[in-house]
Amino acid sequence: MTAPKEIVDAVLEGRNQAVARMLTFVERRSDGVDDALAVLHRAAGSAHVLGLTGPPGSGKSTLVSALARHYRSQDRTVGVLAVDPSSVFSGGAILGDRIRMSDHGDDAGVFIRSVATRGALGGLSRACLDAITVLDAAGTDVVILETVGVGQAEVDVISAAQTVAVVSVPGMGDDVQAIKAGLLEVADVHVVNKADRDGASRTVAELREMLRLSHRTAGQWNVPIHQTVAANGDGVADLAAVFAAHLDWMTEHGERERRARRNAATRIRWVAEELVLDELRPGVAAFDHALDEVTAHRTDPLSAARQLVGR
Amino acid sequence: MTAPKEIVDAVLEGRNQAVARMLTFVERRSDGVDDALAVLHRAAGSAHVLGLTGPPGSGKSTLVSALARHYRSQDRTVGVLAVDPSSVFSGGAILGDRIRMSDHGDDAGVFIRSVATRGALGGLSRACLDAITVLDAAGTDVVILETVGVGQAEVDVISAAQTVAVVSVPGMGDDVQAIKAGLLEVADVHVVNKADRDGASRTVAELREMLRLSHRTAGQWNVPIHQTVAANGDGVADLAAVFAAHLDWMTEHGERERRARRNAATRIRWVAEELVLDELRPGVAAFDHALDEVTAHRTDPLSAARQLVGR
Repeated sequence: MTAPKEIVDAVLEGRNQAVARMLTFVERRSDGVDDALAVLHRAAGSAHVLGLTGPPGSGKSTLVSALARHYRSQDRTVGVLAVDPSSVFSGGAILGDRIRMSDHGDDAGVFIRSVATRGALGGLSRACLDAITVLDAAGTDVVILETVGVGQAEVDVISAAQTVAVVSVPGMGDDVQAIKAGLLEVADVHVVNKADRDGASRTVAELREMLRLSHRTAGQWNVPIHQTVAANGDGVADLAAVFAAHLDWMTEHGERERRARRNAATRIRWVAEELVLDELRPGVAAFDHALDEVTAHRTDPLSAARQLVGR
Repeated sequence: MTAPKEIVDAVLEGRNQAVARMLTFVERRSDGVDDALAVLHRAAGSAHVLGLTGPPGSGKSTLVSALARHYRSQDRTVGVLAVDPSSVFSGGAILGDRIRMSDHGDDAGVFIRSVATRGALGGLSRACLDAITVLDAAGTDVVILETVGVGQAEVDVISAAQTVAVVSVPGMGDDVQAIKAGLLEVADVHVVNKADRDGASRTVAELREMLRLSHRTAGQWNVPIHQTVAANGDGVADLAAVFAAHLDWMTEHGERERRARRNAATRIRWVAEELVLDELRPGVAAFDHALDEVTAHRTDPLSAARQLVGR
C-alpha cells in the first residue's frame, strides 16, 4: 500500500495518477495524509480558485463543464470539486469519486471529484479545502468548486474560493429569490445562465436592482452580471475573462491576500476544533469521568469543559 | 446593576422576577453568568423537559399554549422556550424576550421566552440549554422547547428534551413527508394536530406505516400517535398523560439516565469548542502569527492548529 508521503513529489510534479490518489487519501483521511498536506500546502497558492453556486436547475454543472472545456482549449489544467449536500439527519456522506461530465473522462488535464458536506461543520468541508490544496500544489491552473448554495457548510466552502460566481436562471420562483438575496454577500460575479430563455432580461434587471440596493462602498469590486448559454458555450469565454479580471483586481487591491488570510483563519479554526473534539468522546477516560460528574449534577458542563481543555 | 450570582438564591427559590432576569443574563451571556449556571446546574434535574417540533403551520404554538394551560390547571409551573431559526447568511440572531401567547401574560406560573439559533453550532443552542437549566433549577415542573425541526441546530436542541413530540397536520405535502421521515428518529410521540380536519385518519395511517417500517427493536418505547385539536383543547390532557407515561417508562428502563448522559456530552463538547475557538480569533497574538505563517504558505493549517491548541 502506497503511503501519502511516498507520492508527494509526484503530486508536486503534477503527475495525474499521483494527484488522483492523493485526493482519495484526503477524502478518506488516510494515515499520513496530514504530513503530506503539510508539504503540499507550502507549494500551493498559485491556482485560481473559482466557486460556482446557485440553486438546483440553474445549469451549474453544464456551465462548469463548458468552463473546463474553455480552459482546456487554452492549455490550462482544470480541477473540479463538486460539493453535494447530504442529509442533516443521517450525518452520512455520499462520498465517492463519481466521475460526471464524461466528455472530459479521457482528458488528463481535468480532474473531477464529488465530495459531500457532512452535517457538522468542518468534516468534509475541511476535506474539500484540502483537496483544493492538493490540486493547487500539483500546478492545476484553475480549480472550480461547485456547490448548491443552501447551507452554512456550503457557504463556508464557497468562501474558500477567490472568485465566487452565483448562477441564476430566468424564471425562478420566490424561494430562489431568497437564495439569491442570501448569496448576494458572497457573489463576485453574477451569471444568468440559460440566457436564451424568456425572462432573461428581467432576471438581469432584478439582479441589477438587488446590487444597486446592496450599499457597495467606493473602491469595491463592481460586481458584473454576465449572461451565458452554457449548453452551447455562448458567453463562456467572456465569463472566463471576467474571472481573470476579478483575480487581477483582487491582487492589485490587496483583496487576494485578505481572502487568503480569512481562508487560513477558517481552516485553522476547523482543524483546532477537530483536534479538541477528537479527545472529547465516550471511551476517553477523562471525558467519561466528566460525563459522570455532569450527569449526576455534581458539576456543570462549563466547569467540566474547562478542565478537559485545560483552560 | 445586579450581578448573576446575587440572584442565584432567589432563582433557586423559584422567584419569578429573578428567574426572568437570569434568563436574560443567559441570553446575553452576561459577566458572571457562568458561575451562576455552575450553581444552578447542581440544583437542576427534576423538571420534565418536553420538545415539540414540526413544520410551520402545524399549530405547534397553539398546542404549546394548550399544554401550558393544562399544566397550570394542575398547579404545575411551566416554562416555554421557543427556538426561531435565523438567517444562515447574516449569522445574526433575532434575540429577544418577545412574549407570545398573551393569554398567559399575567400568569406567574408560566415563563415564555423566544431564543434564536445562530448559524454556527453551539452559540444560542447552548444558551437555550442553559435556559432549560435555569428553569429546571428554579423548580419549574415542565419545560417545553418549541422548535421548527429543519436544521441541525434545532435537532441538537430538541435532543436535549426528555420527551420529543413531532407535530403533524392532515394534508401536508411532499416536503413535509421528508421532514417527518427525518424526525422519525427523534420522535417519542407523534401528534396529529388539527385532527378535526379532513385527512386526519390518513395522516395517522401514514405515520403508523412509517413507524412500522422503522425497525424498532424489542424493549423499546412504543411510539404512540396521538390526535389533538389544540385550538379547543381536545386531546390535550391525554397528550400530557402520554408525556408522563413516557417519562415513567424512561426512568424505569434507564433511558432517562442515558439521555441525560448524551445531553451532558453534547453540552461539554459545545462549551469546549467555544473555549478553544474563543482564543482563535484575529487580535489574539498567537492566532495572528499563525495566520501570517499559513497565508504565506510557510506552514499549513494543521501544523498551526496543533501548535495553537497544544496538541
